[in-house]
Amino acid sequence: MSERGEGTASLRPDRPPAGGMTTLADLPIRDDLRGLTPYGAPQLDVPVRLNTNENSYPVPEPVVDAIAKALAAELRDLNRYPDRDAVALRADLAAYLGHGLTVDQVWAANGSNEIQQQLLQAFGGPGRTALGFTPAYSMHPLLALGTGTGWLPAERGVDFGLTAADAVAQVRAHRPDVVFLCSPNNPTGTALDPAVVAAVLDEAPGMVIVDEAYAEFARPGTVSALAVLPDHPRLVVTRTMSKAFGFAGGRLGYLAADPAVVRAVQLVRLPYHLSALTQAAARAALAHRDALLGTVAAIMRQRDRIVAELRARGHRVADSDANFVLFSVGGDQAAAWRTLLDAGVLVRDVGLPGWLRVTAGTPAETDAFLSAMEMIQWEREE
Amino acid sequence: MSERGEGTASLRPDRPPAGGMTTLADLPIRDDLRGLTPYGAPQLDVPVRLNTNENSYPVPEPVVDAIAKALAAELRDLNRYPDRDAVALRADLAAYLGHGLTVDQVWAANGSNEIQQQLLQAFGGPGRTALGFTPAYSMHPLLALGTGTGWLPAERGVDFGLTAADAVAQVRAHRPDVVFLCSPNNPTGTALDPAVVAAVLDEAPGMVIVDEAYAEFARPGTVSALAVLPDHPRLVVTRTMSKAFGFAGGRLGYLAADPAVVRAVQLVRLPYHLSALTQAAARAALAHRDALLGTVAAIMRQRDRIVAELRARGHRVADSDANFVLFSVGGDQAAAWRTLLDAGVLVRDVGLPGWLRVTAGTPAETDAFLSAMEMIQWEREE
Repeated sequence: MSERGEGTASLRPDRPPAGGMTTLADLPIRDDLRGLTPYGAPQLDVPVRLNTNENSYPVPEPVVDAIAKALAAELRDLNRYPDRDAVALRADLAAYLGHGLTVDQVWAANGSNEIQQQLLQAFGGPGRTALGFTPAYSMHPLLALGTGTGWLPAERGVDFGLTAADAVAQVRAHRPDVVFLCSPNNPTGTALDPAVVAAVLDEAPGMVIVDEAYAEFARPGTVSALAVLPDHPRLVVTRTMSKAFGFAGGRLGYLAADPAVVRAVQLVRLPYHLSALTQAAARAALAHRDALLGTVAAIMRQRDRIVAELRARGHRVADSDANFVLFSVGGDQAAAWRTLLDAGVLVRDVGLPGWLRVTAGTPAETDAFLSAMEMIQWEREE
Repeated sequence: MSERGEGTASLRPDRPPAGGMTTLADLPIRDDLRGLTPYGAPQLDVPVRLNTNENSYPVPEPVVDAIAKALAAELRDLNRYPDRDAVALRADLAAYLGHGLTVDQVWAANGSNEIQQQLLQAFGGPGRTALGFTPAYSMHPLLALGTGTGWLPAERGVDFGLTAADAVAQVRAHRPDVVFLCSPNNPTGTALDPAVVAAVLDEAPGMVIVDEAYAEFARPGTVSALAVLPDHPRLVVTRTMSKAFGFAGGRLGYLAADPAVVRAVQLVRLPYHLSALTQAAARAALAHRDALLGTVAAIMRQRDRIVAELRARGHRVADSDANFVLFSVGGDQAAAWRTLLDAGVLVRDVGLPGWLRVTAGTPAETDAFLSAMEMIQWEREE
């Protein structure tokens, strides 16, 4: 299970607490939730945490001050409900995205998980299906489960690639109401060829969601699906401030799409879903985007360094347009994960046999990771 | 349509914008959403706004300072994800609720709307039903719609009362998976007799949610359903900080229930649903609860004053345990609503023929409301 956020549920059995207390099994929970337990990947207290694709750089002091000021200005009137439609924030997000986008083409929520949940509530749900090309962001099937949307796992090709022909064939076979594409993909890290997005848009009978959570880290020349929004009212591009903006704790995800799509999610969004504090903090962060996004180039250098160094050592490594790198250890990835942890470096076992995922952070974190990697037992593949 | 938050969708038809742009009807939205448009009750710029049951008192300066300080302490590390399980906040909420509750019996989310949505995702959803006794909080059926849960509207008795026998008969007839009770009820304002809760708990085959959003305003002697939690693992009590705490802009709802219920909602909650800012601000507000809840007694006095004065003038008025009052105008409530608006006082037409709802706020707001009420045309009923 990979994470941007993290998965909500896993398949470990529920263990009733001692003493005859009520268990999940005693409650009338939905049958499709039975046997699951709340997901909770341990946040291990380790010197170098490179497992959740956070931005390793703290918020710079001047930006801290600006956000603090913006928040303080909201507090006296916290007795009032916030702007239900977050208009000012959406206008700022539209200006940030560019591409001629305006406020009526942008929507915001508490993380892109909530954005995607709202999209499934409007366009998926009972009697409908969503399709994703796995391995991809592990929340997509869980969001489908939580909204009663049928989940159709489609496949990627060799080394997790996805061609237009393969994608179209699977969409044609399943006719899903919603297609999830990830560009760059998580956990593999590689951006999609725009031809794949175009082909899926042509073939898909319903909505096409391109999850661009990590778009700001893409290699030069990478094309965002934002570029083709004007021609595709069934296209939705989702983004987050958690990664490039280093705003994971602030929880702000958003989408860009046709204004009709925004009106559709407004039918299902909870009223006042976005607090006055979230709106103010996100606006202040956007106003200081130069300072916040200043970390992106530094992180991309570490990302490229990890890719180059691991390849030089003989590892297979997926091309990365994100702030993380998926690499092969040629054998037991769980053992390699443990060896890295023992060396004080926490990476992510996303459940792909032979592969691990590491977040690109500071130069010192890269040093620690690359040193620790010299300790793992692995077999070079040809 | 009443609001705590407000309804998300209403039944006005979608009007396509000029110029052949994409409309909602052109998109593959769910059939049960077709024909709806995004709900947006106008936030009219009126001197006296008594329509959304907000707390009229701004946050006191010392509490503003304390929340500002708590928020500032979070900002540097906003690059990190927040505590996914909001443990410290839940412990504080448990301590506030009393009744011997502990952290594992409390869950928090972005408003009690999100709490109730999570409950429906876990215990309702496709193929299941939820029942409420209307008129009640208008979000309950909309949350059912958004989660694919079948909605069963049950009825209240004369003057919106609900007896144990009536409630049990309707639960027995429908066998819903989830029952919503509101105590005090919105928009009527009256707390439930504990015997009704007990009878419904005995009869209901599934979960029973008692929505106590306004509990802090209840008249002396009113019993919270929290008192019977230990004996009822299928009982959930939901609360909010929007009203008594004057924290509507901060968006913090919560529930108290058996620990197994908390584990159940953790199966469907979005990971990191509650931002670091929300958690910190809510904790600071709870730490200063004496200052914040100091407004409750003042609001109750205005509430009681409104009830007494309107009754003295011959209006029928529902007993109120909340920060609002439902009163009869004996005729066309839409005309009365307009007359009050013209006098600078915005109240709420909740769609009950002959009745209006007014929020109890400051003494000056009560003065303005009671003066404006002298201008409406109405017929005294016997």
